[in-house]
Amino acid sequence: MRLSRYFLPVMKETPADAQIVSHQLMLRTGMIKQASAGIYSWLPLGYKVLRRVEQIVHEEQQRAGHIPMLMPTLQSADLWRESGRYDDYGQEMLRIKDRHDRDMLYGPTNEELITDVFRSYVGSYKDLPLTLYHIQWKFRDEIRPRFGVMRGREFLMKDGYNFDLTKEDALHAYNRHLVSYLRTYERMGLQAIPMRADGGPIGGDYTHEFLVLAETGESEVFYDSQITELKFGDRQIDYDSVEQCQGVLEEFTSRYARTDETHDGIIFNNQVPAERQRSARGIEVGQIFYFGTKYSEAMNAVVDDGKGGKVPVHMGSHGIGVSRLLGALIEANHDDKGIIWPEGVTPFHCGIVNLKQGDDEADGACEALYKSLTAMGLEPLYDDRSERAGAKFATMDLIGLPWRITVGPRGLKNGVVELTSRRTGESEELPPEQAVAKIAQIYGVAAA
Amino acid sequence: MRLSRYFLPVMKETPADAQIVSHQLMLRTGMIKQASAGIYSWLPLGYKVLRRVEQIVHEEQQRAGHIPMLMPTLQSADLWRESGRYDDYGQEMLRIKDRHDRDMLYGPTNEELITDVFRSYVGSYKDLPLTLYHIQWKFRDEIRPRFGVMRGREFLMKDGYNFDLTKEDALHAYNRHLVSYLRTYERMGLQAIPMRADGGPIGGDYTHEFLVLAETGESEVFYDSQITELKFGDRQIDYDSVEQCQGVLEEFTSRYARTDETHDGIIFNNQVPAERQRSARGIEVGQIFYFGTKYSEAMNAVVDDGKGGKVPVHMGSHGIGVSRLLGALIEANHDDKGIIWPEGVTPFHCGIVNLKQGDDEADGACEALYKSLTAMGLEPLYDDRSERAGAKFATMDLIGLPWRITVGPRGLKNGVVELTSRRTGESEELPPEQAVAKIAQIYGVAAA
Repeated sequence: MRLSRYFLPVMKETPADAQIVSHQLMLRTGMIKQASAGIYSWLPLGYKVLRRVEQIVHEEQQRAGHIPMLMPTLQSADLWRESGRYDDYGQEMLRIKDRHDRDMLYGPTNEELITDVFRSYVGSYKDLPLTLYHIQWKFRDEIRPRFGVMRGREFLMKDGYNFDLTKEDALHAYNRHLVSYLRTYERMGLQAIPMRADGGPIGGDYTHEFLVLAETGESEVFYDSQITELKFGDRQIDYDSVEQCQGVLEEFTSRYARTDETHDGIIFNNQVPAERQRSARGIEVGQIFYFGTKYSEAMNAVVDDGKGGKVPVHMGSHGIGVSRLLGALIEANHDDKGIIWPEGVTPFHCGIVNLKQGDDEADGACEALYKSLTAMGLEPLYDDRSERAGAKFATMDLIGLPWRITVGPRGLKNGVVELTSRRTGESEELPPEQAVAKIAQIYGVAAA
Repeated sequence: MRLSRYFLPVMKETPADAQIVSHQLMLRTGMIKQASAGIYSWLPLGYKVLRRVEQIVHEEQQRAGHIPMLMPTLQSADLWRESGRYDDYGQEMLRIKDRHDRDMLYGPTNEELITDVFRSYVGSYKDLPLTLYHIQWKFRDEIRPRFGVMRGREFLMKDGYNFDLTKEDALHAYNRHLVSYLRTYERMGLQAIPMRADGGPIGGDYTHEFLVLAETGESEVFYDSQITELKFGDRQIDYDSVEQCQGVLEEFTSRYARTDETHDGIIFNNQVPAERQRSARGIEVGQIFYFGTKYSEAMNAVVDDGKGGKVPVHMGSHGIGVSRLLGALIEANHDDKGIIWPEGVTPFHCGIVNLKQGDDEADGACEALYKSLTAMGLEPLYDDRSERAGAKFATMDLIGLPWRITVGPRGLKNGVVELTSRRTGESEELPPEQAVAKIAQIYGVAAA
């Protein structure tokens, strides 16, 4: 993308009404604009990151064998009356009447709707196991929306639902989700720690929340410091293997890690040596639940068990806060100059800064870099505006592309451009082809 | 995808409440399930096609230089009061009150919201031209939703908005959209004819609707038969060229083609020789508008004109009915056995039917085909169920994958499999590697 043709309304001033750094930076970089309280328009830069995050979630869910679909945003109240949650849910549920005066609602979650899909088509244990998921906008009518997309009212969530014949099978689905979530967050450059949590309005005895440690987190968390040393890394996993998934669960959840909802000071002190005890704040970016037959019994989602009987299916639900993740990513990746995107989710793979726009040689070198990078399937952002160098650098630092190639007449005389890491600030001079090769290597793409 | 692990709830019977063939087939193939009146869940197969259609729309919009973003589904009523449309819009607008009793609505379109984005950031002619678009769910509270996704209440639409300094520039944006729409529909295998239409509630003197001819269309249309011979084809176009875009507009709109809203029998008879006069029914799949300063004046979206003055920007809006397109595609591509997907939008690139599941040789040959196709980036659907051949063929014909590879012990003895075109029904026997090579050629991918 050429910046002269893009829509990137960056702001110099920090907006006064934004209290936390991710909200401030998303506004300053022109990623989002508030449309009304707790509801945002995703401007082009923000939308690009949102799509990258969404794409990683899709890929990892499908790698785990989960099947994508899409449920609507508006639901009929009838299904929620069946499950008993229509009255339970408080004012956070946005209730709507249509022109025929029918009770509708903007879905805050989808257990009822997916259970209805399931019971409409599936009647036999032979069709199990089954896990369906979607990524769709939800609405939660927060009384005081704040912190930008971190606690918005209209938000994008991935929610997935497993249907299994037995509790054992459903717990394998639970473990499979845990593994896929670890991979998902790591690909985004985030460390999200699974912590024992509370079921809340979804219900369920088995539930873990995934928390990113950050000062601005809404939850207080308590954990064994050893847990932050765990990495999923690039290990291969067979998602069909009960043993392998169970092994990962045990590795990542056997040490003490709990949110304040489930924290127990006595267990904490008994189980964790004092020097490894940590308390911190965390941002919740996902949660997995096994809740058994809570919805299948209420809504009569039963299958033939192969022994002549009918049994309610065992279910769980599993969510990733897709739009909220952008806030968490920025909370965890920024400095005084702006955002520092991890390579996995960056809106553009690198920036190209032309120090002397209008200079034939500099323009030509920038165009050549742009073409080479684009031909490899990468997306550079080329600052081709007639601005002074300082302004161009400030914009690039603010929006936080992980790599920047700086092109100027002086370097070109020596046959070099400058490649700069946004994270370390380190620069090196090298010929343009080598800069391209290095970017290609970083992103794991083949030279064209 | 292996069918044994997929969720494809096909039905044998035609649902009684579905009146038109696309609605019937989308239900029978398990593409959609009604969630409530005029609101659908997109089951896995339907969701896949929806994504393919969406992807083509994205690619063609971006090729034309239009910038993607995303506006929310819910909007504040305040902006609609500014434009004067809050009261104008009738009961089709879904009006909502939030917990603080604020007036909200589920956006049926986004002129107000995008104009607010524009005026918040852009103040100079130097930032023009600018075209922003998004693909987002909309709601229109139809009194009698029907025909499945063709006239649903919650529907997915691409809507784009151009902002230009002058009428001439805005008309170039109009033409650019017309060209990009022609490419978009052709890539999907659809012929959509631009016809002179009526502005309706959006407003505007210049507007064309794109119609797909089909017996079940909601509009009566009148046209010169020469128009159906026009093809955009694979011609190269420079979207920055006023002349080229204008040329395409003239080529595709100079012949008589109007919907019943603007049809004029006298002009029709004078302009079109009797033997070329056609009347038919059409499905509207898109519409483009130039409406000048209607919204920018009402909402004070002005820019410096570079001559010391401030002028309201010239705007247009441009929509493609993404979810509705699936209905139109099926209306235009089906036979007695089911759907016949064009290659551009097919949910899976080809089917693999194993005639003797459990036979080592047949299973091995199917697995090898599956791997070869997947390695090239294609998505085959492998029917690995223990069903009889007839049931497998019926399912494949119903869901309409354009190509099917049939694998059985008898053919394998002679070293061949069977490759069948869904559209023509023609089959040929050839070695598995050649079947794969032919599929690769059809989809324009390189062998791995």
